[in-house]
Amino acid sequence: MSEVNIVIRKAIPADAAELLKVLQVLGGETDFLVMDDLGLDMTAVEMADNLALMYESPNNLLLVALLDETIVGVASVMASAKLSIAHIGEIGFSILKEYWGFGLGSFMMEEILIWAESTGVIRRLELTVQARNERACSLYEKFDFQTEAVMARGVKSDEGEFLDVYLMSRMIDE
Amino acid sequence: MSEVNIVIRKAIPADAAELLKVLQVLGGETDFLVMDDLGLDMTAVEMADNLALMYESPNNLLLVALLDETIVGVASVMASAKLSIAHIGEIGFSILKEYWGFGLGSFMMEEILIWAESTGVIRRLELTVQARNERACSLYEKFDFQTEAVMARGVKSDEGEFLDVYLMSRMIDE
Repeated sequence: MSEVNIVIRKAIPADAAELLKVLQVLGGETDFLVMDDLGLDMTAVEMADNLALMYESPNNLLLVALLDETIVGVASVMASAKLSIAHIGEIGFSILKEYWGFGLGSFMMEEILIWAESTGVIRRLELTVQARNERACSLYEKFDFQTEAVMARGVKSDEGEFLDVYLMSRMIDE
Repeated sequence: MSEVNIVIRKAIPADAAELLKVLQVLGGETDFLVMDDLGLDMTAVEMADNLALMYESPNNLLLVALLDETIVGVASVMASAKLSIAHIGEIGFSILKEYWGFGLGSFMMEEILIWAESTGVIRRLELTVQARNERACSLYEKFDFQTEAVMARGVKSDEGEFLDVYLMSRMIDE
């Protein structure tokens, strides 16, 4: 049995170049990516600036999962600066296919919840997930996310078929 | 009885300067504005470019309601360029308070539905609305929008109170 070293931590500006590379791969290999806003078309310098802002943000979070110092997954919580909705964090997850099924999602979700409770700002976490993505749905249910809506035609598959998307949420209380 | 002349049409680049002014006012006077993406911090030149793009877009729409040639309301449908969700149009409405209750919302919604059916691309319209905004909810129900979710803590009022937000949708079929 071999030993692996997994670290989950907040992304820092120095991760910019590697992160951009990983996001390219993730964008290509999964139907479930919800992280458009992370900016796949940024330069490394822009990404580094972005990461610095997120690192300091009271209501935004970007986590990286490192396996022996290589990024194999990312998780994000995005929230608005607008006061009326600054308490709502939208979660996005993306893990390299090779590393599915090792519990990385759970580790990252635990970190997200600990962080959310510590912010004092985030009071609602939400996410959307394709109904057919059973692995992800189970993960969210395990962490007490509730399905608020079945969004009809929430996404179209590569085959042109309309699919249901769940809107799920979890309240955060002090 | 005086006569007024109301025109509803697609926004054109020449509307840019006036539109920016109206959006400033709308941003200040309503809790219900959902059109952040229209870009209140754009210059008139950027806005004109943006309007030109929207005018030509197969799945984005910006309507203006003109009362005697002055913009008194706007309605937007925003959709992604991403193939998997390009069929989903998110509706935003904003009408100057002075002109509430004259049916402008209905006129604009009729135009939106006619446009959506003509696109061949849009197959789902969606919007979010504060549950307490009864006037808007009635309008959407009149046009057969269905409530898909009651989003708990979907918005925080100026008084710091968490309020429910409805997610509503309406399918578009040929």
